[in-house]
Amino acid sequence: MSRYEQLAQQLREQIRTGVWQEGDKLPSLRETVRRSGLSLMTVLSAYQLLESQGWIRSRPQSGYFVAPAREATGYQAPPPLLPAETVDINAFIFSVLQAGNNPGCVALGSAFPDASLFPRHQLSRSLSRVARQMHAEGTGVTLPPGCADLRRSIAQRYAARGMDISPDEIVITSGALEALNLSLQALTRPGDWVVVESPAFYGALQAIERFQLKAVAVATDPQQGMDLDALALALRQYPVKACWLMSHCQNPLGGSMPAANKQRLLALLAEHGVSLVEDDVYGELYAGLDPPLPIKAWDREGRVLHCGSFSKTLATGFRIGWVAAGQQSEVIQRLQLMSTLSTSAPMQLALADYLSSHRYDKHLHTLRRTLEQRKHIFYRAIQRAFPDSVRVYYAEGSYFLWLELPAHCCATRLYWRALEEGITIAPGRMFAADEQYRHCFRLNASLPWDPRSETAINRLAELIVEIIAEGPQT
Amino acid sequence: MSRYEQLAQQLREQIRTGVWQEGDKLPSLRETVRRSGLSLMTVLSAYQLLESQGWIRSRPQSGYFVAPAREATGYQAPPPLLPAETVDINAFIFSVLQAGNNPGCVALGSAFPDASLFPRHQLSRSLSRVARQMHAEGTGVTLPPGCADLRRSIAQRYAARGMDISPDEIVITSGALEALNLSLQALTRPGDWVVVESPAFYGALQAIERFQLKAVAVATDPQQGMDLDALALALRQYPVKACWLMSHCQNPLGGSMPAANKQRLLALLAEHGVSLVEDDVYGELYAGLDPPLPIKAWDREGRVLHCGSFSKTLATGFRIGWVAAGQQSEVIQRLQLMSTLSTSAPMQLALADYLSSHRYDKHLHTLRRTLEQRKHIFYRAIQRAFPDSVRVYYAEGSYFLWLELPAHCCATRLYWRALEEGITIAPGRMFAADEQYRHCFRLNASLPWDPRSETAINRLAELIVEIIAEGPQT
Repeated sequence: MSRYEQLAQQLREQIRTGVWQEGDKLPSLRETVRRSGLSLMTVLSAYQLLESQGWIRSRPQSGYFVAPAREATGYQAPPPLLPAETVDINAFIFSVLQAGNNPGCVALGSAFPDASLFPRHQLSRSLSRVARQMHAEGTGVTLPPGCADLRRSIAQRYAARGMDISPDEIVITSGALEALNLSLQALTRPGDWVVVESPAFYGALQAIERFQLKAVAVATDPQQGMDLDALALALRQYPVKACWLMSHCQNPLGGSMPAANKQRLLALLAEHGVSLVEDDVYGELYAGLDPPLPIKAWDREGRVLHCGSFSKTLATGFRIGWVAAGQQSEVIQRLQLMSTLSTSAPMQLALADYLSSHRYDKHLHTLRRTLEQRKHIFYRAIQRAFPDSVRVYYAEGSYFLWLELPAHCCATRLYWRALEEGITIAPGRMFAADEQYRHCFRLNASLPWDPRSETAINRLAELIVEIIAEGPQT
Repeated sequence: MSRYEQLAQQLREQIRTGVWQEGDKLPSLRETVRRSGLSLMTVLSAYQLLESQGWIRSRPQSGYFVAPAREATGYQAPPPLLPAETVDINAFIFSVLQAGNNPGCVALGSAFPDASLFPRHQLSRSLSRVARQMHAEGTGVTLPPGCADLRRSIAQRYAARGMDISPDEIVITSGALEALNLSLQALTRPGDWVVVESPAFYGALQAIERFQLKAVAVATDPQQGMDLDALALALRQYPVKACWLMSHCQNPLGGSMPAANKQRLLALLAEHGVSLVEDDVYGELYAGLDPPLPIKAWDREGRVLHCGSFSKTLATGFRIGWVAAGQQSEVIQRLQLMSTLSTSAPMQLALADYLSSHRYDKHLHTLRRTLEQRKHIFYRAIQRAFPDSVRVYYAEGSYFLWLELPAHCCATRLYWRALEEGITIAPGRMFAADEQYRHCFRLNASLPWDPRSETAINRLAELIVEIIAEGPQT
């Protein structure tokens, strides 16, 4: 192959992989000569070859541009489906999350509430204000523990619930997931035992695997939360270092712990010297008028690391969470300095600006009411459409519904079939290290009830009928 | 203590820790009654007590506000200095980074260039555009690999250097530090051996400790980069899995590897089946007219994970980096999904917007020239001011100067003394697992040469003279 053909092939490859897309201006002849060391004649020949093949077009006095994609090059095959129903669990979770990323899907598997419920006018105004400030003062790195105004606003929200949390013990993180991971790292060493819920948020299970910990999964109920007798047994039988659980609107079940259970749980942990990572990312989405107190509220010994977030209630894409870490605050800051250094400064400033407007509580009030209404509509539609043998758990607060197919059915099979039709669900296989929830799945009931949602629920119902009829599934 | 005194004490504590600051409105009497379950009379008594003690003030028809801090409560003692010169290295690095966070310091220890050199007008405009878009469309989570337009812009910058990097292999991360950490995790298992530089960016040493890896430190030279004969020896003697190094403007030395050495290094690694984490966060700050090619440019086997960032050249506080990860792209995306989920969407969109304006290259051109000029002025000032026994390494590109005190001196001692006078340096102790660079330190030469910088350099010179005179230091 001659030099100009080699160059043409290289550019063709770049167009094929999307480095240059339809309408993009290619590097000029002069730039390419300078960069490649080839002669002008060679570069020109390559460009002319690509033009003759229809890949690029020249525009007089402005250079070469990528031509509209032809069918042969423009077609993107969909990713192949995984063939088996039992697969590497991390790969499976990855594919479930990626599938939900497709805007064409009805995202009943999503963990986020419908984004149209967020106050984007006000947030946009706050971000604009930060942009204008940046114009004047710049925005440098905000090292851990993070933006002081934001930490103070969070401490004020704790104070309004009667909780004494100093701004100094709050560390701002890249979403609650970083807060949770850093908390677990701060409390454990490889080989340590950790209590988790069953079913549990998959992030907890992945963290335990990644940090080489050992897990005791304790049965968790949609109404009562973690089974405290089982927890007591686990604490007697294993040298547990930490416990990770969700006190409110548990993911995936949706339920919250009664206050008495929270206190008993904390007493049990204290008795065995065990620390708690309290994942409270859905804590603001309680039912009723009064906010429930997190377990942290009863903590007098700095045993509880309370992790919160704005991602589920305010600003999905900002990726801002926090941990009220007590004495572990400095350890967590050090871990953060080593892993991500710090959290985006403009995002922290924009949230601090929004919170200073005191609109958050009003927004949350409306959000809670809307979510409750939408969940109720979904619940009734599901009861009408799904076979009677499907059990639906309806918890107060949250926007999740947890469903159980008959025990012989595989919800992962339902997941794949629904996906082919542009509907996602969160199959039970994601929420435990073993197969015990393979017949279960979680639905997001925060979407508006419109023809799209209705069609999706009815289609799911048909798929469920099919799967039940197929008999025992391995 | 009576109930109202208890409540008053609680509020006083919240004011003391900064939950409520001067001028903040306290929760209303009614809210506090509702939240605490106390009677209105009790709450009122508590507020009146605090008012009589001067902590808060009432404003008719608007409520209670925190009074201006009195001297006794307003004074914040400076953090105590660490007493010893040898300390836990992570705690030491943490304290060095925190000290640099103080805006009152002359931050000669900082790893970031002077923030006034960044194009904040244009970035502010891009962020405003994103804010307006958010108003209309919202900003959801951008799951890994991250914003497509941003990845395409980065791929175009590779293409302009003749490198074929598909947008699909690029993963956007929370700064380059996350990219580097995820890359090392993707390539290694606990117990594996990793080659690092000596001296090295402390982040590499911390990652190795955190992931329970074993390190072989290979001598690195300001002009030649990693000693390739020593590397060959290390690869023969240890079952090395990965190598982590900086090919350009090495931190802390400032120097870059010649192209021939890069190729020889890659051949050596290939011979032993070793992968490379190429930390190239300063790669755009080269000297001269032509950009040097990263080691990744010669990589035909997907052996090199090339990590870059906008934090050192464009937008310090945005915390956006990336890795061109080749076949490891999916593994890295999975690890990211588990650890931070994703990178802030508005930050990615704002950078994509800025890059689409094609101003970045012009900005970089100006930035490189300014940094070169400033470094030169610092270098000459240091040569004039510092004793002759202090050796100064001046590398092309970068904005770091690396200095060696006489071997008997301790740069950590210099660090503490300078800090007391509001000047930071980056002591050599940060850049190795052992004490071999204890007499060295890194200076940031990106600051403007003004009376403040001049005073700081002259004061440093005096402190150095003192320390040299103090004789052998343990």
